[in-house]
Amino acid sequence: MDKRITVPCTKVRLKDGFLAEKARLIPEKVIPYQWSALNNEIKDAEPSNAIENFRIAAGESSGDFKGMVFQDSDLAKWLETVAFSLMTYPDEELEARADEMIALVAKAQQPNGYLNTFYTIVEPNKRWTNLRDNHELYCAGHFIEAAVAYYEATGKDELLQVICRFVDHIDDIFGPEDHKKKGYPGHQGIELALIKLYKVTNEKRHLDLAKFFVEERGQQPHYFTTEALERGDKPWDNYTYNQSHVPAREQAVAEGHSVRAAYFYSSLADLVLETDDQELLEVCEKLWDNTVNRQMYITGAIGSQEFGERFTIDYDLPNDVAYAETCASIALIFWAHRMLQIEAKGEYGDVLERALYNGVLSGMSQEGDRFFYVNPLEVYPDVANYRHDHRHVKTTRQEWFGCACCPPNISRLLASIHRYVYTQNEDNIYVHLFTDSELDTEIQQTRLKMRQETAYPRGEEIKFSLQTDSSLSFSLNIRIPQWCETPVIRINGKDVVAPEIIQGYVTLTRLWSDSDEVELILPMEVQRVWANPKVRENRGKVALQRGPIVYCLEEVDNGTNLASLYLPEETEFAIEYDEHIQMPVLVGSGYRVDGSDESLYRTSKFVTELVQIRAIPYFAWNNRGDGEMVVWINNG
Amino acid sequence: MDKRITVPCTKVRLKDGFLAEKARLIPEKVIPYQWSALNNEIKDAEPSNAIENFRIAAGESSGDFKGMVFQDSDLAKWLETVAFSLMTYPDEELEARADEMIALVAKAQQPNGYLNTFYTIVEPNKRWTNLRDNHELYCAGHFIEAAVAYYEATGKDELLQVICRFVDHIDDIFGPEDHKKKGYPGHQGIELALIKLYKVTNEKRHLDLAKFFVEERGQQPHYFTTEALERGDKPWDNYTYNQSHVPAREQAVAEGHSVRAAYFYSSLADLVLETDDQELLEVCEKLWDNTVNRQMYITGAIGSQEFGERFTIDYDLPNDVAYAETCASIALIFWAHRMLQIEAKGEYGDVLERALYNGVLSGMSQEGDRFFYVNPLEVYPDVANYRHDHRHVKTTRQEWFGCACCPPNISRLLASIHRYVYTQNEDNIYVHLFTDSELDTEIQQTRLKMRQETAYPRGEEIKFSLQTDSSLSFSLNIRIPQWCETPVIRINGKDVVAPEIIQGYVTLTRLWSDSDEVELILPMEVQRVWANPKVRENRGKVALQRGPIVYCLEEVDNGTNLASLYLPEETEFAIEYDEHIQMPVLVGSGYRVDGSDESLYRTSKFVTELVQIRAIPYFAWNNRGDGEMVVWINNG
Repeated sequence: MDKRITVPCTKVRLKDGFLAEKARLIPEKVIPYQWSALNNEIKDAEPSNAIENFRIAAGESSGDFKGMVFQDSDLAKWLETVAFSLMTYPDEELEARADEMIALVAKAQQPNGYLNTFYTIVEPNKRWTNLRDNHELYCAGHFIEAAVAYYEATGKDELLQVICRFVDHIDDIFGPEDHKKKGYPGHQGIELALIKLYKVTNEKRHLDLAKFFVEERGQQPHYFTTEALERGDKPWDNYTYNQSHVPAREQAVAEGHSVRAAYFYSSLADLVLETDDQELLEVCEKLWDNTVNRQMYITGAIGSQEFGERFTIDYDLPNDVAYAETCASIALIFWAHRMLQIEAKGEYGDVLERALYNGVLSGMSQEGDRFFYVNPLEVYPDVANYRHDHRHVKTTRQEWFGCACCPPNISRLLASIHRYVYTQNEDNIYVHLFTDSELDTEIQQTRLKMRQETAYPRGEEIKFSLQTDSSLSFSLNIRIPQWCETPVIRINGKDVVAPEIIQGYVTLTRLWSDSDEVELILPMEVQRVWANPKVRENRGKVALQRGPIVYCLEEVDNGTNLASLYLPEETEFAIEYDEHIQMPVLVGSGYRVDGSDESLYRTSKFVTELVQIRAIPYFAWNNRGDGEMVVWINNG
Repeated sequence: MDKRITVPCTKVRLKDGFLAEKARLIPEKVIPYQWSALNNEIKDAEPSNAIENFRIAAGESSGDFKGMVFQDSDLAKWLETVAFSLMTYPDEELEARADEMIALVAKAQQPNGYLNTFYTIVEPNKRWTNLRDNHELYCAGHFIEAAVAYYEATGKDELLQVICRFVDHIDDIFGPEDHKKKGYPGHQGIELALIKLYKVTNEKRHLDLAKFFVEERGQQPHYFTTEALERGDKPWDNYTYNQSHVPAREQAVAEGHSVRAAYFYSSLADLVLETDDQELLEVCEKLWDNTVNRQMYITGAIGSQEFGERFTIDYDLPNDVAYAETCASIALIFWAHRMLQIEAKGEYGDVLERALYNGVLSGMSQEGDRFFYVNPLEVYPDVANYRHDHRHVKTTRQEWFGCACCPPNISRLLASIHRYVYTQNEDNIYVHLFTDSELDTEIQQTRLKMRQETAYPRGEEIKFSLQTDSSLSFSLNIRIPQWCETPVIRINGKDVVAPEIIQGYVTLTRLWSDSDEVELILPMEVQRVWANPKVRENRGKVALQRGPIVYCLEEVDNGTNLASLYLPEETEFAIEYDEHIQMPVLVGSGYRVDGSDESLYRTSKFVTELVQIRAIPYFAWNNRGDGEMVVWINNG
């Protein structure tokens, strides 16, 4: 196994920092809210019916299946979120409720192991006949993930057993053997789930099944074409949508539905981790480079087009009609997290952090009770509410969605965010995220605790204190974000002079003793960011960033028509703390082009006036009422 | 009758100028091409079937109706274009062909006067049951226009008689009387056509029927709702699409399908001209102000959204996804032409000229053989050919369209453009357009000829020479375009000192004698144009204009990624004559932001390099191969 590979540290407890505040919203607000949603108790929202579907499939209730063909996954995501939450916030009542749901799921399982309420209730004779569209394997993947998390959180294996029986059944249906189907999921997810399962069960056929699904994808004759013809359906001309246009090993450009893509690329990285497949690593690296250096918004959002919820072409990153699905940024984090485990390169951690603090957090309101599915970087409500090509853009966060993929995805990420902070191997500990937390691990068979104290990302100072029974020689590797040019590092109060930063990490190797302290200062200047000139939409514009936080202008602070504001290059920003948003905000001077003149076109410039410009974190927009918002500000 | 009102001079002959070159393409290229199209002789194009439909309806052929429900209008527009063309370019063969078509139309007319091949062939029992969608009255309108034009051109009245019988039939069906339907067209056009007919027939019921259609529109109970319920169809929630949301007299904002809107507003102006209705004039003025000062592109294009081919909201003028239909600019010219007759205000003439030289001419290739339906102000072929929300944007002019409204509309406008140059009343002659031409008219019962010599819009000098048998006292009113700040006017070689320009016209009143000459110089500086800051898409950008011509940058002259080019404020442009485009082009210096750097986002500016910038007339783009094009250029 490659020496560079690390594994995530799971015994991590978030303390009082920023991410803990967000994570705490999950058990406090989101889990109960989702529970109501799953039980059709949200007024004015399309009823989810997810639990009722299971009751019907279990023979406990009668009636029709309702909801999307992948409605089961909502219960699975809820269970997975509960599992993660229980790791940090034990809650007997919640655990009992989850156990009850698990019993219901077990009851809905068919004698042969099959588990899917849509096909059980609606089309029992059509199982596995439309992998392209109907999400059976996708739902299975979410249940596998839930089962693994629940087992890890509680030690209870009822769901794990149910799911292993289901996976046995899937393994009977799909595989390289002649009598088995050569199919794979239309919506990926089961691949990475099977690898999680493999890590718990250590059953090689779980890994092999994941590998089969990955390698079979995009092979000729094309499975989805064959399957469509068998159904009497029309095959597609082009399979980029679900990344089955060519086999994985031939892919170099991020294509198609962005969530499917990033789940798929995550599973490729998983295979690299499990099998040390260097060819597949190159594929991952090419896809990564294309994604983050050609097709990613500054917020860590991906997938710029609503039609197909997909990637388009390099540098095509419209701000106003951006799709930028919350789930896609989450999937990008899943992928980045795996790339980091392959090799701790700063760019992976930087992207993970960018997506987390911007593109993902923007998906949830400050109170944890409203959600964005789509996260544009520019919203003019009059336009967004009128224009047909903006109809996917909501100008306010919503309570729930007919296709409720994003809120449960945010909650499972945030409830497990403690697992993204540190990774380790034999003689290295890596710090990827800065957040008030406590690590409890073993290194070289010795228990090591490490406390990380910080107000990050509000503040720039981070302190690590070690607690160990005996001195230990290992390397503490700390990510130095790319935005930080002048980090200060002190060990036990003494400056580390000219620390060497390799691939975005500073490596502190020494014989560490109990009570050793490392201080890190990541000076957070207000930075202007320019986009590559190939990004047409950002020409003549700059974005503001402080630390990992991308800022935006909101109408409530800056008046209407944000497009008429200009930010001169000489503007210096003062940093103020906003009590409502609970974040530092930026205040500086700019000017506004006066549009009170009635002419639509003039041969002389419009007059300007000096104004104050106030920028808030992008993720915090739309928490003080509706209005305009822009990330990219006219420069000049 | 209002003293200000003027009537168009019809005895005008274009000479060798720019508009004559365009107008001559119509008989040379477009009419024969359209004839082939109407006869299904264009390879690779959807067969029009328009003539075959008439043959079937006339009993001369058998088979199925093919094409759009409004396919008849294509033949009507062809006939109207032929009529206008014959006024300038007599052609016996073409006239004989038109006569043959008229005989066919007459044969397809039903005994009761009804004329529509779709309903005659396909649904004879459903006539007048779906005015909202099915264009019966719209097609009738185009035949009325064709009949009037053909009568004016040739003195032959066969088509006029056919059409008068049809109008009698329509008049039997629709009207204020209790037993008649209270309907009106879903797609307007018949209103202005009936007023044209009235001017030829002097039959008041033709005017009254037009008035009925105009005044009934948008009244409650809503006709389209009643009619839909009678058909068992679903009524619409909102009738802005076809301007029937409220009665005409309550409208103040341009709404809905832009071609329908401008045809409708044209008919309101016609009613003002015929009835001196001051309330309706105010409505026209409000709608005009909203259209041209809130919702018009700098090219004179209107209707910014593909969905509904419609107006959206004030200042919403996206350049890349613009719909900007050629027909809508043509309809705006129809409207402007009528407003000018109500009152010769410079803004009407300015808009007419802007739409003509930019938004309309861009619709046709230099050779007259390819057409744009959609006229965006910014095209990046990679994006336009990929993005779903750009799918209406074609990156190259097309031979023909399934819905072939635009090419015949361009041709009927250009073939009749001589009628837009001059208007007159008792003691005034107005010059609205500058183009090499000869006017032959009577004023105060005396024959007056006036020769206009000019290379406009290529050149800036215009000379008028009068020819009259006896001296005449009248006012010669010449539009001074708003873009011109320092016009020079000479009468018989002597400067008119400090000419007074009122509402955009200079009025030269004197006793005019034979051989009198007026020279006019409209200095054509290269002008930068700024858009109102409320137009988000144009912030930080300028457009270039010289005389009435809006310029653009094309990839063939300026390389790829036009979004990376900047035009400094101090750039002075040299004017060069381009032999291929046959127009003056602008050459100056600018700079390009270098995007060869691989980073997508940087905290330092990208480097720039000095480059030459070459701008060509917008209407002439895409005549030298495909590529990028922008009208609005980064300023700075």
